Amino acid sequence: MDAVMKENYSEKIFLETETDTIEGVIIDSSDDKKFTLTKVVRYPSGEEYDGVYHYCKDEVKNVCVLKYINSGNEIICGNSSDANHFLTGEEYDRLIALARDTVFIDCTNSLFGEAIETINKETIIGIDAKGVSHGRQSDIELFSIYTRSSIYQFDILKLGRKAFDSGLRTILNGTIVKVIHNSRLLSDCLYHQYSVKLENVFDTQVGELMVERNVTGKIPDYVCNLKECVNIFLGVPSSLVHSSQDDAMWSVRPLTPSVMFAAARDVVFLLALQERIEARLLSRLKKGTELFLTLVRDSENDEANFYIGRNHLVPKQFLEFEFIDV
Amino acid sequence: MDAVMKENYSEKIFLETETDTIEGVIIDSSDDKKFTLTKVVRYPSGEEYDGVYHYCKDEVKNVCVLKYINSGNEIICGNSSDANHFLTGEEYDRLIALARDTVFIDCTNSLFGEAIETINKETIIGIDAKGVSHGRQSDIELFSIYTRSSIYQFDILKLGRKAFDSGLRTILNGTIVKVIHNSRLLSDCLYHQYSVKLENVFDTQVGELMVERNVTGKIPDYVCNLKECVNIFLGVPSSLVHSSQDDAMWSVRPLTPSVMFAAARDVVFLLALQERIEARLLSRLKKGTELFLTLVRDSENDEANFYIGRNHLVPKQFLEFEFIDV
Repeated sequence: MDAVMKENYSEKIFLETETDTIEGVIIDSSDDKKFTLTKVVRYPSGEEYDGVYHYCKDEVKNVCVLKYINSGNEIICGNSSDANHFLTGEEYDRLIALARDTVFIDCTNSLFGEAIETINKETIIGIDAKGVSHGRQSDIELFSIYTRSSIYQFDILKLGRKAFDSGLRTILNGTIVKVIHNSRLLSDCLYHQYSVKLENVFDTQVGELMVERNVTGKIPDYVCNLKECVNIFLGVPSSLVHSSQDDAMWSVRPLTPSVMFAAARDVVFLLALQERIEARLLSRLKKGTELFLTLVRDSENDEANFYIGRNHLVPKQFLEFEFIDV
Repeated sequence: MDAVMKENYSEKIFLETETDTIEGVIIDSSDDKKFTLTKVVRYPSGEEYDGVYHYCKDEVKNVCVLKYINSGNEIICGNSSDANHFLTGEEYDRLIALARDTVFIDCTNSLFGEAIETINKETIIGIDAKGVSHGRQSDIELFSIYTRSSIYQFDILKLGRKAFDSGLRTILNGTIVKVIHNSRLLSDCLYHQYSVKLENVFDTQVGELMVERNVTGKIPDYVCNLKECVNIFLGVPSSLVHSSQDDAMWSVRPLTPSVMFAAARDVVFLLALQERIEARLLSRLKKGTELFLTLVRDSENDEANFYIGRNHLVPKQFLEFEFIDV
C-alpha cells in the first residue's frame, strides 16, 4: 500500500474507515503505522480540518484516489468522451465547492424568480427531492436542482405547493432534460401531490441497468443506488452521498450548513454520472467510428488503395469487436 | 392515393418520378390523371418555379410527405426525443433556406477569420468534403461546415493547405464534435495531405450500422450511403443529396449557385441525422425511464403501496420489453 500511496502524493485521496471517510492529500506514508494528510475533510459530516493529521493504517479499509490533471486550464466538468474515467481532482473540487455554497430559497421573492429564470435557460439539470420515500403519501421537504454553475435548494416544507405553482412545475413538465437517480417515487409524489407530470427524464438508475445489460447480457434483479453509482462511475466514495434510509434529518428546521451540504452532494454528481452512463451506452458506436477514422488512414499505400474501391462495404474488422464487452 | 393526397393538402410533398423529384404543396388531386402543385422546386437541380403546375399521376413512382406542425412557435431543428420522427415541414424549410444561402469563402481575409471564430464557438458541427474519393491521393475541392445557423463553404481548390493552416485544422483536431457520414476516405485524405488528424467524430454511417445491429442482432455487409440515411431517418427523398459518383462537378470554377446548393444539401441534414441515430441507440434507456416514471404513478393506491417497499428491486415489467425491438 505504501508504494501506491507515494505515487499518489498530491492527488485527492479518500481513506475509508469503518465509520468515516477522510478526504485529504497525503504528504507522508513512510511510517509503518500511519498516513499523514493535509487539507482534511471528514465525511459524512463534511467538516474541514486545517493543518496536518495522522491516520492509523490499520483502520483504513479502502482507499479511493481522484487524480489531478494539473493542466493549468479550467476543467469543464464532464466530457462525454471519457466514458470510463473517474472524476478528475479538479472536477471533484469544483463540484464540492458548489455543494458547499448552495442558493437556499424559502420564499417566493425576487431570488426565487431569478432562480427559476436561470434554471429555465439550461438544457439539462440534475434534480433530487428529500422526503419522498412514501411516494404519493409524502410531502417533499427539500428540492434540489443542479445546473452546472449553481445548486438551488427549495425549502418545500415552507414553500409548499406554491413553489411548483410559481415556476418549478413548468421546469419539471418542460423540455429541459432532468437527470434523476430513481424517479419512481418522486414521479408518484410529484404527480399526486403537486400536479407535476415529469417529462424528459434521464434516469441514471435505469441507465446503470442498461450498462449492466450491455456487459452481462441480462438485466439484474436489484437496482444500484446513488451511493454505488457514484463509486462505480465517478470513483467518489459511497459515503459522500446519502442512502434514503436517514430521511428524518431533512425535515428539521432551520437546516444546518452540514445538512444542506449533505443534500447538495446528492444532486451535484448527477450530470457527471449521466455523461459517463450515456458514453458507456454509446461506446460501441465510438469504437466503430474509431475504426472508420483509422482503417484507411493508418494503412500502407497498397492497402489504402484496396480500401478505396470498397467504400460501400462494412469493413471486416467491424465484426471482430462485435464480441468485445463494451 | 387520392385520399392520402387530400389529407396532405398544405403539407410538404415530394413526387418522385423516374428522373426527377418535385417538391411542392398539393392544392388539387381530384383529377384522375394529375396532381396540381404550387411552390414547386425540382431536384436534383434545385430550381424553383412560381405559379401552379400539373404532374401526371402515372409518372409518379413514389410520394414523400413532411408534415408541418403549424404550432406558431419557432421549431428548433432536431430534438433528441423524436427518435422515430421525420423532419417537420418547418425544419426542412429552415434547412433548405440555409442551404440556398451559404457563406462562400475563397480567400483568408477577415470573412475567413470571422467564420473560424464563429465555428469555434459551436459544440457540434456537420462536415462534408468534395473530391476525396481517392483518399490520400485526392485534393479536397470544396469543404462544407454546417453550424445550425449557417453553412460555410471553403473553396479548397483555391485556398489549398492554407485553409487548414489558418484555422480549419484546429477545428478538426479539436473538441468540437464533427458529424460526418462515412469518415474513412476523408480521414485518410486529411491526414496525409493536410496534416489533420480528425478527432471527436460522430460517424452517421457507423451509427446506422449500430441501429441496424440493435434491430436485427447483426452487422450487415453493406453500409448505407447518405442518400439512403436521409430517407430512412428524416423522410427526405434520396435525390436531394448526392451520391459520390458525380464527383467532376465540384472542381468546375466558378461554382454555380446550383452546385453550391447541391453541396450544401449534403451537409445540412447531418445534425438532424445524428440526433435521430443517437436517440435510436438510446431508445431502450428511454423506454426503461418511461417505465420508472409511470410504474408507481399510474397505479391504484394498493399497488402503489406495494411498490414503495420494493424500491430496491428492478420492476418485473422491465424484463418484458427486453424482447421488443427498439
